[in-house]
Amino acid sequence: MNLLLKEIRNNPLLWLLAFVPVVFVATRLRPEAHTLLFVLSVLAIVPLATLLSHATESVAAKTGDAAGGLLNATLGNLTELVIALTALRAGQYVLVKASIAGAIVTNTLFMLGASFLLGGLKYHVQEFNRVSARMQAGLLFLATVALLVPSAVSEADATTHAAFTQQLSLGLALLLIFAYGLGMLFSLKTHREAFASAEHGEDGEAPWPIGLALATLAGVTVLVALVSEIFVESVQQAAETFGMTPAFVGFIVVALVGGAAEMASAFSGARKNRLDLSVGIALGSASQIALFVAPVLVLLSYVIGPTPMDLRLWPGAVVMVLIATLAAMFVTNGGRSAWFVGVLLLAVYAIFGMTLYLLPPPTP
Amino acid sequence: MNLLLKEIRNNPLLWLLAFVPVVFVATRLRPEAHTLLFVLSVLAIVPLATLLSHATESVAAKTGDAAGGLLNATLGNLTELVIALTALRAGQYVLVKASIAGAIVTNTLFMLGASFLLGGLKYHVQEFNRVSARMQAGLLFLATVALLVPSAVSEADATTHAAFTQQLSLGLALLLIFAYGLGMLFSLKTHREAFASAEHGEDGEAPWPIGLALATLAGVTVLVALVSEIFVESVQQAAETFGMTPAFVGFIVVALVGGAAEMASAFSGARKNRLDLSVGIALGSASQIALFVAPVLVLLSYVIGPTPMDLRLWPGAVVMVLIATLAAMFVTNGGRSAWFVGVLLLAVYAIFGMTLYLLPPPTP
Amino acid sequence: MNLLLKEIRNNPLLWLLAFVPVVFVATRLRPEAHTLLFVLSVLAIVPLATLLSHATESVAAKTGDAAGGLLNATLGNLTELVIALTALRAGQYVLVKASIAGAIVTNTLFMLGASFLLGGLKYHVQEFNRVSARMQAGLLFLATVALLVPSAVSEADATTHAAFTQQLSLGLALLLIFAYGLGMLFSLKTHREAFASAEHGEDGEAPWPIGLALATLAGVTVLVALVSEIFVESVQQAAETFGMTPAFVGFIVVALVGGAAEMASAFSGARKNRLDLSVGIALGSASQIALFVAPVLVLLSYVIGPTPMDLRLWPGAVVMVLIATLAAMFVTNGGRSAWFVGVLLLAVYAIFGMTLYLLPPPTP
Repeated sequence: MNLLLKEIRNNPLLWLLAFVPVVFVATRLRPEAHTLLFVLSVLAIVPLATLLSHATESVAAKTGDAAGGLLNATLGNLTELVIALTALRAGQYVLVKASIAGAIVTNTLFMLGASFLLGGLKYHVQEFNRVSARMQAGLLFLATVALLVPSAVSEADATTHAAFTQQLSLGLALLLIFAYGLGMLFSLKTHREAFASAEHGEDGEAPWPIGLALATLAGVTVLVALVSEIFVESVQQAAETFGMTPAFVGFIVVALVGGAAEMASAFSGARKNRLDLSVGIALGSASQIALFVAPVLVLLSYVIGPTPMDLRLWPGAVVMVLIATLAAMFVTNGGRSAWFVGVLLLAVYAIFGMTLYLLPPPTP
Repeated sequence: MNLLLKEIRNNPLLWLLAFVPVVFVATRLRPEAHTLLFVLSVLAIVPLATLLSHATESVAAKTGDAAGGLLNATLGNLTELVIALTALRAGQYVLVKASIAGAIVTNTLFMLGASFLLGGLKYHVQEFNRVSARMQAGLLFLATVALLVPSAVSEADATTHAAFTQQLSLGLALLLIFAYGLGMLFSLKTHREAFASAEHGEDGEAPWPIGLALATLAGVTVLVALVSEIFVESVQQAAETFGMTPAFVGFIVVALVGGAAEMASAFSGARKNRLDLSVGIALGSASQIALFVAPVLVLLSYVIGPTPMDLRLWPGAVVMVLIATLAAMFVTNGGRSAWFVGVLLLAVYAIFGMTLYLLPPPTP
Repeated sequence: MNLLLKEIRNNPLLWLLAFVPVVFVATRLRPEAHTLLFVLSVLAIVPLATLLSHATESVAAKTGDAAGGLLNATLGNLTELVIALTALRAGQYVLVKASIAGAIVTNTLFMLGASFLLGGLKYHVQEFNRVSARMQAGLLFLATVALLVPSAVSEADATTHAAFTQQLSLGLALLLIFAYGLGMLFSLKTHREAFASAEHGEDGEAPWPIGLALATLAGVTVLVALVSEIFVESVQQAAETFGMTPAFVGFIVVALVGGAAEMASAFSGARKNRLDLSVGIALGSASQIALFVAPVLVLLSYVIGPTPMDLRLWPGAVVMVLIATLAAMFVTNGGRSAWFVGVLLLAVYAIFGMTLYLLPPPTP
């Protein structure tokens, strides 16, 4: 417990934990103040995600290499998963899908781009492990194909049979999880050595004892779930107040909030010239969302959602995910980076953000 | 003749030749048993294709390097060509086009992917000739553009003038054959040395004498043509019995049957750590179908088809060919492979297969 | 002045300058002879563009490295800019947009492809600076995304709100210019050394004195503007006479005329085994048009055009620009070239040309 307090004292991001009780009080006193609740819930989720991320890594560090890697690979995006589950239970499938696509795009373009830029401003040229980056880009490509094909084929042939899309989504979800599992087998077991320098885990921060880590994991997950509920309820109406389109909220705002903790790690890695870490977090997180979180949500929608959810995205989202994947494949191909590479990725992200921000809401 | 019998004794695949007479007898006795005829014709085509492939290579080996390479490059997909010609004469243009696109996709994703996987399960990391792979991928890219542009442009502008598509297809067919010819000049003549290790031709199997080879080539081609007729007639109705969509049959079943002999060679190469051979067969065969077989079919449709055939594919097929090409470009870029690369390619193929299998038949 | 005459005597291309007075006389005497005026104006623009290009380089050489690079980067496509401005003032937005997209495609596929082919016919294998080529390809990718996303998103959602497209185009134009500026900072300042061998500027041709260069720059720009007016007025009607579609004229004819001077430099570089120069000119010019000329035209349309112009291209053009960019990314990835790489690029260009030539004019 002392360790937890010390951690909080050293990490200014964790001071935002003060907003956790504030948001619970606010939601009781002013349940209709959506804009306030939205801002407070964002401020509360960010430090909780940071704690969650650190707890996961601590448990992973204790349980040994392969099991730890597995744990990191499944719980690494716990915040995104909990937020999406909350939206799923509320039947807000458009928000769920937008936040999945948005998280892929945001991790690939914004997190990676900002890491390249921040690292590049300090170091002239930076190198990173190509093997790891290429594998993650390959997994992302696979997921993009899985998202693209149902949309392309069914749109092209004007078959809007819901049954077809639903069956296909179920099959694709199982296939993606299977491929993700084999990917872990590859990187954690059979070809471990090729991924050596791309280890997750922060140096300088000692892992917590296992008891504290597990307790934090459990307790904070519950807190994230509770705050997510307030976030999901308030986000759409708050967005309207700020003049944001629903697409912009799901794609950009939710993705940035959900990924804040990982971004802090990725950026700090880049500033320490440990670009392997940054690339690993950014692309690893993107492919994890695409191949693990998204399929799990499809499967869980059969259990907890009002109706089954399919994997079909709106065409504009597919285009963005495809472009983000192609950009990641192109950029990570050489294994070297300079600040301008980051600028290119951020510019593509800015184009997407601008388009979504200006997009008139669809007339239903 | 003794040599031929010895070959048959050593190669279990050739024992299936017994089905050749069986299918001819069956088509006389039970002409309406489509499912039976379909299964028997598949079992008969596979060994015939193997014989054809070996005869072509034997003739090629005798006629010297450049001429042999040329021969291999033009007759290497003789089975696919004969099957497609049979479908063309029957006016089944949808089946012809689906089998062209399917052969490209199957060679690029399934044959290459399974080679990587089978080789990777035995060897930790395998290397192959990048120059050759990149050239084949470049030719494939060219062919994909030729298939993509007419569809994209005409669809986008809602011009369905048949005359435009027909003229364009004719021009593209000539252009593709010309580019294919220059590609052979490049790989067999001016830049021969860069393709050195990607030689076709199996070691361990002595080439047949030229007389036997030519006689086999002629005789087996006739047999393939006869069995193909039974295959093309029975495939659609048999597919319905198995619950397969027409798209799935053309794309997956015909492509796997037509390419069975090459697959046997490619997989055996991969297991012997001769991945150059596997990549050369897979991508070489794909680009040959795209740049030689497909254009030749367009040109021949003016002579033997009921009406001229154009090169325009349905949009879903274009997307699949495009993705397969991008995947091949990405995967062969590094010149190295491990088992997981094969898994990625096979997973993309599985996505396509699943989509086509579930796709409801278009309502005409 | 003597120097200018000597230059003219040595460069046969400049003998075409004789057509400048001829075209002015012809437009007075036979204002309705569109085909004649079109041919004459083309013959007059080519040598003027050559002079303009040489004058820009001379000024750049005098003003020192960074400033000179900046000048080259902004005035390098002065001919294209002047032609497009003339069309803009005349309100011919379709022609402006087609010539922008066409210039990108022509530089990327035709100029680069012909350089590879011409160089490859003389040298077995040629190498070039990958860093520079990759950066230009990256900038092109960014521009393609900027052109693609508004079309994809707005089309997909069937929102044809002109206000949305207009606002987005303005934002994208500013973003592209900003990215282009940062790109210059990167290549001319912070990472200068990586671009060392990709220097523009011809060896063997001494730069002119600054006075002569500036006077030529000013005088020739005025002449180009005057001839462009005749060109833009006559091109559409002349095209009809030759049986060309408007799309073909904008995409192919205008792009080839506007880029003739740069092509001469690029091809001469390739024949001297200085492929760095050729790749730098081809991709540099393409990315300059996409990230500088196009946005500047959008911004200037607010001042000099009848109505503001947006960045939205017709879908077929977007597909072509996207394919050209992907081809450039793929081809320049290795940093090596042989003649067949040029053939592949030229074949893709031929496919585009053939499609546009045969394309029936859209029924409005």
